[in-house]
Amino acid sequence: MALELPPPSSLDAWILNLGTELLTGFTQNTNAGWLAKKLTFLGYSVKRIIVVPDDELEFGEELRRAIEKRIGVLITTGGLGPTYDDSTLFMISKTLSIPFEVNEEALNMVREYYMRLGKELIEDRMKMAKMPKGAIPLKNPVGAAPGMILRTGGTYIISLPGVPREMESIFEGTVEPILAKWSNVQVKEERIEVRGVMESSMAPYLKEIVKQFPQAYIKTHPKGSEREPVIVIQILASSKDENELNSVISKIREKIESALKNLGGNIG
Amino acid sequence: MALELPPPSSLDAWILNLGTELLTGFTQNTNAGWLAKKLTFLGYSVKRIIVVPDDELEFGEELRRAIEKRIGVLITTGGLGPTYDDSTLFMISKTLSIPFEVNEEALNMVREYYMRLGKELIEDRMKMAKMPKGAIPLKNPVGAAPGMILRTGGTYIISLPGVPREMESIFEGTVEPILAKWSNVQVKEERIEVRGVMESSMAPYLKEIVKQFPQAYIKTHPKGSEREPVIVIQILASSKDENELNSVISKIREKIESALKNLGGNIG
Repeated sequence: MALELPPPSSLDAWILNLGTELLTGFTQNTNAGWLAKKLTFLGYSVKRIIVVPDDELEFGEELRRAIEKRIGVLITTGGLGPTYDDSTLFMISKTLSIPFEVNEEALNMVREYYMRLGKELIEDRMKMAKMPKGAIPLKNPVGAAPGMILRTGGTYIISLPGVPREMESIFEGTVEPILAKWSNVQVKEERIEVRGVMESSMAPYLKEIVKQFPQAYIKTHPKGSEREPVIVIQILASSKDENELNSVISKIREKIESALKNLGGNIG
Repeated sequence: MALELPPPSSLDAWILNLGTELLTGFTQNTNAGWLAKKLTFLGYSVKRIIVVPDDELEFGEELRRAIEKRIGVLITTGGLGPTYDDSTLFMISKTLSIPFEVNEEALNMVREYYMRLGKELIEDRMKMAKMPKGAIPLKNPVGAAPGMILRTGGTYIISLPGVPREMESIFEGTVEPILAKWSNVQVKEERIEVRGVMESSMAPYLKEIVKQFPQAYIKTHPKGSEREPVIVIQILASSKDENELNSVISKIREKIESALKNLGGNIG
């Protein structure tokens, strides 16, 4: 069941991944791509993915920018765990001058988790229940640290853990239904794969088609090489009206396929 | 052979990946992690990875920020190809008010590439030879679009293609030797893997060790789960002096291993 929350000021989204381990290349940032795809198909327009170090000034700067730009949904990942550098929620509180305090609901979640493991609630574990005042904790079905959602102006900050299965589990369990309710649009993607046409040969045709359909996102992705060219052409569009959505996509597909045939391409 | 270029104003680096396909989740951004690791081991401190849409205002904003912050090395990927939305070098010219013109050396590279394929140099292909005035083109051993390096103030902008094997090939062939010469430091990383200690149990010990060695980067990476905990502890340090580097790392390793043994951990 989706929480009852008023919609954000826009359907623009940012993804902010915290973690020096992502900036040293120790850890591959698979969270960003996963979230980007989810958000796109939920009808949001992802305008930035930003990876910042575990540093209050660097993180605070990006957080403030997102709010100033009236980004509707800002998803953060990482920094919710028990170690000294897990300080995302503290940094959010500090940047926004909101009191940082134990959230009773979050504390119950953390306590329950460690009770099941037969472990004590030491200080470094209890820290996972501290949140900016006014935050709503999000239950973590597979780990200790709860996520949280906090509204500030027209922006919702949604903070999730960095461990992929914890992040995905909270997102799919709690966040996805809320985001779907807010956007209330349908998104559809189609792909055309073609052999024997170079991306550079297709370029002038595509430029024209893109001009005719400014509401859709049309992009060629070269696979293979320019010597043995394979291109995937992606068409992505969204609408509140499913019939309109289907009609726009099939018109674009027709124009692209006709251009590809003129160029001697082998579709399919 | 590394080009003779004066060093940048700092060893701070940003990675700026252009491409709406990265923001829709169509394409996984493997370039960012690959570059982050390379830069780290070349002695650079990566402060941001930013993914922006193919949009002049969005890209220009991040480019200007990097220069204002006196980031020494800004690496861009994507947007060097022949299609309508491949406009990275044009956007750099426009943002920095530098004339955008055909670079003769780049034109020879592009012409040679298509001549080998027996293809004409049509306008959409020739576009890959246009660069900001003053840029040095970087030979692409495996594709059509040359990379480029441009100095502006204390910042070097290094633009590479988005296709991973083209990006990697230019980086390793031309960029890496230049970056190594500029930084002139040694970087070393060690990892300790331990079973049977929870990340949250290790947290208070680690906090102390980190305080004692502010020059190093020490981070726990939980693998497994809190129920069957495995943690990898990463130690990363850099120095111009190899003896000093080895000595710092072995002191840190000793302290961490002693704490892990106290906690009943099983190292190795």
